[in-house]
Amino acid sequence: MSAEAVKPNIASQVNHLLAQMTLEEKVGQMTQVDFTVIGKPEERHAENPIDQAKLEDAVLRRHVGSIMNTPYTPNNQAQPIATWRRMQETIQAAAARSRLKIPVLYGIDAIHGATYTQNATLFPQAISMAATFNPDLSFKAGEITAREIRASGLLWNFSPVMDIGRQPLWPRLWETYGEDVHLATVMGTRFIEGHQGADFSAADKGLTCLKHYVGYSLPFNGKDRTPAFIGERMLREYFLPTFAAGIKAGAPTVMVNSSEVDGIPGHANRHYLTTVLRDELGFKGFTVSDWQDIQRLYTRDRLAASEKEAVKIAVMAGVDMSMVPFDFSFYDILLELAKSGEVPIARIDEAVGRILTVKYQAGLFNTPKAPIPVEGNFAAPAATATNRQAAHEAIILAKNENHLLPLKKDANILVTGPTANLLSVLNGGWTITWQGDAEHLYPKDKSTVLAALKKQSTGKVTYVGGDRFDDPIDSEKVVAEAKHHDVILLCLGEKPYTETPGNIPSLELDPEQQALADAVLATGKPVILLTFGGRPRIITKVTEKAAAVLLGFLPGMEGGEAAADILYGAYNPDAKLPITYPRDTNAITPYDYKPIESFEQNTYDPLYPFGHGLSYTTFETSQLKVDKPRIGFNENINVSVDVTNTGKIAGKETVLVYLNDVAASVTRPNKQLKAFKKVALEPGETQHLNFTLTPDDLSFIGLDFKRLVEPGDFTVMVGNQSVKFTVSPS
Amino acid sequence: MSAEAVKPNIASQVNHLLAQMTLEEKVGQMTQVDFTVIGKPEERHAENPIDQAKLEDAVLRRHVGSIMNTPYTPNNQAQPIATWRRMQETIQAAAARSRLKIPVLYGIDAIHGATYTQNATLFPQAISMAATFNPDLSFKAGEITAREIRASGLLWNFSPVMDIGRQPLWPRLWETYGEDVHLATVMGTRFIEGHQGADFSAADKGLTCLKHYVGYSLPFNGKDRTPAFIGERMLREYFLPTFAAGIKAGAPTVMVNSSEVDGIPGHANRHYLTTVLRDELGFKGFTVSDWQDIQRLYTRDRLAASEKEAVKIAVMAGVDMSMVPFDFSFYDILLELAKSGEVPIARIDEAVGRILTVKYQAGLFNTPKAPIPVEGNFAAPAATATNRQAAHEAIILAKNENHLLPLKKDANILVTGPTANLLSVLNGGWTITWQGDAEHLYPKDKSTVLAALKKQSTGKVTYVGGDRFDDPIDSEKVVAEAKHHDVILLCLGEKPYTETPGNIPSLELDPEQQALADAVLATGKPVILLTFGGRPRIITKVTEKAAAVLLGFLPGMEGGEAAADILYGAYNPDAKLPITYPRDTNAITPYDYKPIESFEQNTYDPLYPFGHGLSYTTFETSQLKVDKPRIGFNENINVSVDVTNTGKIAGKETVLVYLNDVAASVTRPNKQLKAFKKVALEPGETQHLNFTLTPDDLSFIGLDFKRLVEPGDFTVMVGNQSVKFTVSPS
Repeated sequence: MSAEAVKPNIASQVNHLLAQMTLEEKVGQMTQVDFTVIGKPEERHAENPIDQAKLEDAVLRRHVGSIMNTPYTPNNQAQPIATWRRMQETIQAAAARSRLKIPVLYGIDAIHGATYTQNATLFPQAISMAATFNPDLSFKAGEITAREIRASGLLWNFSPVMDIGRQPLWPRLWETYGEDVHLATVMGTRFIEGHQGADFSAADKGLTCLKHYVGYSLPFNGKDRTPAFIGERMLREYFLPTFAAGIKAGAPTVMVNSSEVDGIPGHANRHYLTTVLRDELGFKGFTVSDWQDIQRLYTRDRLAASEKEAVKIAVMAGVDMSMVPFDFSFYDILLELAKSGEVPIARIDEAVGRILTVKYQAGLFNTPKAPIPVEGNFAAPAATATNRQAAHEAIILAKNENHLLPLKKDANILVTGPTANLLSVLNGGWTITWQGDAEHLYPKDKSTVLAALKKQSTGKVTYVGGDRFDDPIDSEKVVAEAKHHDVILLCLGEKPYTETPGNIPSLELDPEQQALADAVLATGKPVILLTFGGRPRIITKVTEKAAAVLLGFLPGMEGGEAAADILYGAYNPDAKLPITYPRDTNAITPYDYKPIESFEQNTYDPLYPFGHGLSYTTFETSQLKVDKPRIGFNENINVSVDVTNTGKIAGKETVLVYLNDVAASVTRPNKQLKAFKKVALEPGETQHLNFTLTPDDLSFIGLDFKRLVEPGDFTVMVGNQSVKFTVSPS
Repeated sequence: MSAEAVKPNIASQVNHLLAQMTLEEKVGQMTQVDFTVIGKPEERHAENPIDQAKLEDAVLRRHVGSIMNTPYTPNNQAQPIATWRRMQETIQAAAARSRLKIPVLYGIDAIHGATYTQNATLFPQAISMAATFNPDLSFKAGEITAREIRASGLLWNFSPVMDIGRQPLWPRLWETYGEDVHLATVMGTRFIEGHQGADFSAADKGLTCLKHYVGYSLPFNGKDRTPAFIGERMLREYFLPTFAAGIKAGAPTVMVNSSEVDGIPGHANRHYLTTVLRDELGFKGFTVSDWQDIQRLYTRDRLAASEKEAVKIAVMAGVDMSMVPFDFSFYDILLELAKSGEVPIARIDEAVGRILTVKYQAGLFNTPKAPIPVEGNFAAPAATATNRQAAHEAIILAKNENHLLPLKKDANILVTGPTANLLSVLNGGWTITWQGDAEHLYPKDKSTVLAALKKQSTGKVTYVGGDRFDDPIDSEKVVAEAKHHDVILLCLGEKPYTETPGNIPSLELDPEQQALADAVLATGKPVILLTFGGRPRIITKVTEKAAAVLLGFLPGMEGGEAAADILYGAYNPDAKLPITYPRDTNAITPYDYKPIESFEQNTYDPLYPFGHGLSYTTFETSQLKVDKPRIGFNENINVSVDVTNTGKIAGKETVLVYLNDVAASVTRPNKQLKAFKKVALEPGETQHLNFTLTPDDLSFIGLDFKRLVEPGDFTVMVGNQSVKFTVSPS
């Protein structure tokens, strides 16, 4: 269901309900509290961690419209699915006893699957989903995630992240679909379509939430929640289009940027929250603050001289719901502001109307039914298979000297490095816990890389390493063992993190990992470098000497099996880099750089460019053509190209169609991805592919901050071919 | 003479002249060519490197209004002062033979003194001038620089750089007065005042040029001439005020930003070049392009589909003079555009009028007199003494464990490291040559650090190192020699550079230098780390073990002597950091960070903060007071504080007055420097200092991009004291 199309009967139901509501009930709808507000303190794996009295205080006395997050037991962590179902029943039962029986909308961070439900299907994180260049997998991940949260009694997912990942140090880079606007648009909207279906009130569908509106992802120094300096034009060019697409795809909720752009905190930015989001993008759903961010306009940003002023600023800027989250301060203050007239009732009604509309659209007012059964809908074998396929398509083969890979099954492999034998490093943050690093809570039936290799190997697999990420590794032992093995698998990378705990002062590898790599490479044995983690840590020196390089990023719970499948050739890799992999820590230039960035001493010289990714076979593109040499302003142009598997085994190739606007009134990128298609090809097989470029693909944000197409020449580039066409001025 | 006040008689002279000029003569005035256009090819130390026929072609046939740069012999390099005087005489003689006898305005990069005149007084570079926190020194540097270029027959100096240095990787950081707006404003305007005097037509004064208007200094990835993402509000808050101040101080010319801001190249940005610069800031002088940058709107930026379109865009945006620089293409094209009406004559007249006005103001139309005598005006002993004082006040004592410094004169010192025995590393780019790295061209009578130590020492000074920056250093020999010495002076840093050749992918020290440091520190001997170079390279690990740390940056030609004076205690150091010295390569947070940057896991934790700098004595500030607890909107407030020398020797202390706006509608920095004063104090002496904060000091750029003061509380901070006052809303 598109949030744009509010059915007339819903509009009248909302108005009817609004007319009956007290101011207190309205303000309550705008209030979202954390589970701790209704939970028993630190009750570990209680059958129902809800404190009934606290729940009733929240729902009946404070009329809260929304609750969020997972119980604190003693950390925020995943719960058994039965607990979730019971909790949601308890909460809606309380809501049903309220005067107007307005249901509670419960929100959860189900970032790469149902994060907070034990044993959920946990997919590759967004950066790795992007690496698949396979929109169908994103659609399926959306479908399965929705089904699994619905089986958990949940409905509203704080996902997907629609920020663009152009700052590799940012500790949430991996939550994005990478640095390219088109790729992120396609992967993000397909996720929404899978998650919401045609009607997100269906029993196995759920609501999405576009995060983090807008400009959150480009902190100047890379630290989470620090200022971005993005100007209006570049914000509209790079950071707004994914949100526009997500709204068009029907996402009914938007979460606000926790940080600031050009000096204005996201939660106070009326220009972006109202003028742009509502008037320009036509968003009809509701906006929700990020964690504590309205209070923080006072306590942190000093944008307000009091919490009261902070609430007024945020609500008047256009924040409809406050993720308070630990108390009822927002409720109390907004009530006071509304009574004194400092916040007009009309603005309250607008916000509450939007929230109620989404609740009606979600079917929450219908007679409550039991959630879909767990059996067949949760962690089903088909979901696991899809997840394994996603992991297969997510792991990037970056180097393969002398066809070292695939390995024979009987190869004797020495495995070492901190990421070889942990599930957490495959999954990253937002897995089971917020930071994702509670390895002991991970499922026992999933395989680390080491475990998967041992399962599949018919040779010797020896591990030299620790049990935890930071355990010291005896590099002398690694060197001594090397001579008894054919090959060394060196597993490096990052432990899980998200948000400010993931801040780093440099992309350099940890010195311990660099030292281990140096020792391993000095043995002279063939080394396969396999990395996991959310950011492109600097591995330049290691890759120079390693015979093969696999970039795993965060392939999810099936990542260990998938890596083993690729190492042994059971799967022919086909992933591509969704970001530019930098050669050094400050060498940060995206693939769609401006001409000035490749002029004189300036060069685009990354370790691996955007779109890089090898296969065990080879592909060639040829016969690149456009159907017309010249088009008018509002015309499409068709591009066709042949792609051939020129190697000896079957494989998949993603054909990337780039465009360059040869001259324009705002400097244009040297090239930009405008279309892509992933195809499976048997050896020797050729497919003829067609793409359509629309006027929107040819457009950019002009001097006056408006999107336009300018007449002149354009160049289409695929592989090493290019072809020109002209847009006529008439 | 302020550029704002154009005398009525000059205006009428300009109009009279304009009325007589042909279109060709007008377009010629807007054309600036490089010396090569009029020079003999690669004539080394020719008595007069000018090719008379080429000169006449340029001046008489093409009517060029301006020539720039130093002869190519075979690189751009400093010339004997007699050559310069002769060349300028030749050029003006040719101009005097032109129909209207319009003199040529010759421009030169006299960045830290008369760069391109041999043996000129070459001061600390701007970053080091800023470290002095001594505006009088900046004034004197301006005076001496102007006098020395005038003695060279030159007049127009492409200096000062008024960009703010908030991106430490940027290879021109050292050309700025650091990261703080107030400090850069004061140091930059005092330089202009010294350089121009009350009337820049005086025989020993010269014209300045504000660079690089505007937003050039914040490339996202730190590479020179790559895009900056600065939004309008932050541009006005951080990057515009120094230019506004420079215009107010009377700078008659402005050079344009070579790169792009928010997608628009500086040379095409009508908003900044005309609306802001002319309509808002009231600039009456002329703008000049940077090197080849109008052509590059076509050849590089593809903002134009032809060079013709590029010229039209730039001229219509507000560029008055084109640094073409190698041919007459600009002249030919602009002529064509003017004839066809594509560029209106009114715009040409406007630009030419501005150029001619500056030429009249500069006294160029007066009967040409011989330049001031060389004797007494060029490299005079008093200038050298001022330069040495500037270098004294520029070198920062960052650490001095157990009072290791000052050393006794008879200490046995082992000196090592690539910056110990080179003059070029003290001076940086724009010294004798563009890149400043031609050590063999440096004067023979100036001292490197090593030479100065040898001159001053009564003990043993041993050097282990090479003759060139990149020469390998025998660290085994260093270690072996260590035991025969009392202390090791480890000289690290950067070789000279500027612009794109100075791009680096990381602030990390060169591995060779890190290895040398490790070896030196492992000896157990006390180590003094002394650094030179334009950027804060990462020295965190070295400083942890070094007993003393001196940060030299680029102290200029007297830097060697000054460093020795400080090492031996002949000068008590008093410099302070004009930037934040980062702890790691991506840990880039300026001192005036926003509150969000010091919240939860975010911290301001640099190696050394802005303003850090030790002395051999100690100081205390006390009795911080404001004269009123409450002021109105347009009132000043007076701040007073006592500063005492609490140690045993005389010294200078800079008292820094910071302000915080407690709550505002745009997030405000945790603190901002608003005033400072450097005072000399005898042991035990106290001085009572008064500062006045104006409404401008209390203001910021608001939501609507306009400067305003908001009512509410403010905190004044000096040392570890703070005091509050309130601005009343009435």
